[in-house]
Amino acid sequence: MLITRKAEFSASHVCSNAELSPEENERLYGLESRPNGHGHNYVLEVTVRGDVNPVHGMVLDLKELKEVIRENVLDIYDHRFLNREVPPFDKVVPTAENIAGDIWQRLDEPIGRLGSKLHSVRLHESDDLFVEVCEPHAK
Amino acid sequence: MLITRKAEFSASHVCSNAELSPEENERLYGLESRPNGHGHNYVLEVTVRGDVNPVHGMVLDLKELKEVIRENVLDIYDHRFLNREVPPFDKVVPTAENIAGDIWQRLDEPIGRLGSKLHSVRLHESDDLFVEVCEPHAK
Amino acid sequence: MLITRKAEFSASHVCSNAELSPEENERLYGLESRPNGHGHNYVLEVTVRGDVNPVHGMVLDLKELKEVIRENVLDIYDHRFLNREVPPFDKVVPTAENIAGDIWQRLDEPIGRLGSKLHSVRLHESDDLFVEVCEPHAK
Amino acid sequence: MLITRKAEFSASHVCSNAELSPEENERLYGLESRPNGHGHNYVLEVTVRGDVNPVHGMVLDLKELKEVIRENVLDIYDHRFLNREVPPFDKVVPTAENIAGDIWQRLDEPIGRLGSKLHSVRLHESDDLFVEVCEPHAK
Amino acid sequence: MLITRKAEFSASHVCSNAELSPEENERLYGLESRPNGHGHNYVLEVTVRGDVNPVHGMVLDLKELKEVIRENVLDIYDHRFLNREVPPFDKVVPTAENIAGDIWQRLDEPIGRLGSKLHSVRLHESDDLFVEVCEPHAK
Amino acid sequence: MLITRKAEFSASHVCSNAELSPEENERLYGLESRPNGHGHNYVLEVTVRGDVNPVHGMVLDLKELKEVIRENVLDIYDHRFLNREVPPFDKVVPTAENIAGDIWQRLDEPIGRLGSKLHSVRLHESDDLFVEVCEPHAK
Repeated sequence: MLITRKAEFSASHVCSNAELSPEENERLYGLESRPNGHGHNYVLEVTVRGDVNPVHGMVLDLKELKEVIRENVLDIYDHRFLNREVPPFDKVVPTAENIAGDIWQRLDEPIGRLGSKLHSVRLHESDDLFVEVCEPHAK
Repeated sequence: MLITRKAEFSASHVCSNAELSPEENERLYGLESRPNGHGHNYVLEVTVRGDVNPVHGMVLDLKELKEVIRENVLDIYDHRFLNREVPPFDKVVPTAENIAGDIWQRLDEPIGRLGSKLHSVRLHESDDLFVEVCEPHAK
Repeated sequence: MLITRKAEFSASHVCSNAELSPEENERLYGLESRPNGHGHNYVLEVTVRGDVNPVHGMVLDLKELKEVIRENVLDIYDHRFLNREVPPFDKVVPTAENIAGDIWQRLDEPIGRLGSKLHSVRLHESDDLFVEVCEPHAK
Repeated sequence: MLITRKAEFSASHVCSNAELSPEENERLYGLESRPNGHGHNYVLEVTVRGDVNPVHGMVLDLKELKEVIRENVLDIYDHRFLNREVPPFDKVVPTAENIAGDIWQRLDEPIGRLGSKLHSVRLHESDDLFVEVCEPHAK
Repeated sequence: MLITRKAEFSASHVCSNAELSPEENERLYGLESRPNGHGHNYVLEVTVRGDVNPVHGMVLDLKELKEVIRENVLDIYDHRFLNREVPPFDKVVPTAENIAGDIWQRLDEPIGRLGSKLHSVRLHESDDLFVEVCEPHAK
Repeated sequence: MLITRKAEFSASHVCSNAELSPEENERLYGLESRPNGHGHNYVLEVTVRGDVNPVHGMVLDLKELKEVIRENVLDIYDHRFLNREVPPFDKVVPTAENIAGDIWQRLDEPIGRLGSKLHSVRLHESDDLFVEVCEPHAK
């Protein structure tokens, strides 16, 4: 059984790599490389895998899951300029792929402590683009 | 090839377990445990797996699939108070997980009779919460 | 300038009028008249009209608007069986029209106290049905 | 007849007024006042009013309308930090209300040159908040 | 009080005017003028204005409204090639504006017979384009 | 890591098989078999699988992916009558399943040339129906 909870946060970012030239950054990232940054309403879908508890009929306590997402992701990312305020994005380019990977790192252990398994992190950067990190061997 | 059909139904429910104390039920289910019930517009996505028939170009006859969903789910769940009117929810807590599990039981065999395989049942209880039951070994 | 804030609540209801016969109620309301009730995820859009304050650039303080909606609508309606728990719906049929009218009554004065004018209340009962109450002479 | 075209842009902003204290800014704007900025996927709906041309059956040439929106709004706002890169937001707080007012100013005359009348500008900052500027006397 | 019902239909069309040259048609309508036609999932929103009936709490019987839309619009438009099968589009260019105008003509009288007033017809041709016809003096 | 890009196209089609009788075609495809055709706004989701490049932080260059989808799908399908203008649909019934299969064939190799792997093609024909083709052994 998989259970998915959605959450949203607003953040700004710049996609550029300090080791590359401005031209190379613009070629790679287009408008995303403009130095003052721009922003998105990111939509996050966190999917947890587990068995349904026969007593209460849930995979895990949804209020606890919500709290784990709030504490480990929203409180850190929401209304922030990622490159300046949220490590590792002072050093790592905050592409959707890298943000999703960082969210996986932040959620994997706390969700394990709730007795469940993080199955996937899906991050929508805009209406026409999303990325997904999955459990190894799951897809 | 996977083919997915959406359907909706409106129902009300109470999430509480008669074997637990009111305090324990409130701690577990929050507002969902209020005894008079409340309701949702449930959105159901039924995914069927099969090969594409080389003559008609479809996995299965969509009108038959729609009819199977109507007969086995919508006619039973729609505009009902689940705890009072739809067994097993007189005994089983109608969490999203248990509802999805019950829908899987109701659809698995009739879809098999159409010559296809039920692949997953995804049930959205609200905009920010959905659950999914999949074929064993599929995910 | 109009500013609109969305909110959601889950509730259950029965549409039937005690002064009518069961047959008449079923003819009028169809499945909505089943006596145990059923539920919806109601989506509410509250639109306020006002001038933009030249200092802070807003029609009104959004946190105050959110609080007014929470206190006067969500705390009263959310996760409730309207006919049994939320007057006047012990006496008045809780159609979408009557719910929207009741929400207008509950919000009109508190929004006036914020120095703005309630412009419209739009209530979505499902994806394909919504009702709207507007200021007199506005539409 | 009204015709509405949607467009999207991503931008970042800070809501704070240099004439107010940091405490006052935080009280007014909450997380929106954090100094490094954050961002949104803004969704813009531009509504034009006009008669249907009896020869071609349109209110106005949609390709021309799209070009007017691109040239006067998207090219200026998209992937920008509004406070730093898009006047008047170096001096005016970029609330949704002020952004919508600025877009009205930018579009009113060019749409008039297409032979139509700008009817309303609706700007969605997030899924649960939008503002709308209308023609005088229209609402 | 306004009440809005959504409905969908799939149809194909060609936008071109036989009195214009192919070049002029292509300049005006772009890809929409290709002679074999293409199609859309049209989303229709029909808004009716009326007082709430004090006995049954509704502006009008929703099942009757649904039936009026089905009989006067869906049965005629759905799964049709408009230019070839649905007059007046053998002579009139089936732009979104003209389709909305035709739907208004088809619905105005039957909705009047239900004791209500047709307030607006809104037609979405795609996610980023919709048109709206309103009651005179309403907007 | 999976990355998904959405795109849309409008097309018309007829679902019928010349080797079957009109009655058999109508029984199989219902309204979809009407000979003049009808249309849809198809929504396409192309999912690519790959490792995140440690230098630029992306699975692949999104502008290149967009270009591959435009060149191999949109330029061929958009604003076309599939049965008449887009082989193999002169011979193959353009059901959603067959269209998704054809899109897989068109995209698999060009995405491989970008150094990534096509993971799935999901095609939405309407709000309540979509099909998906996946990598062998992936689901």
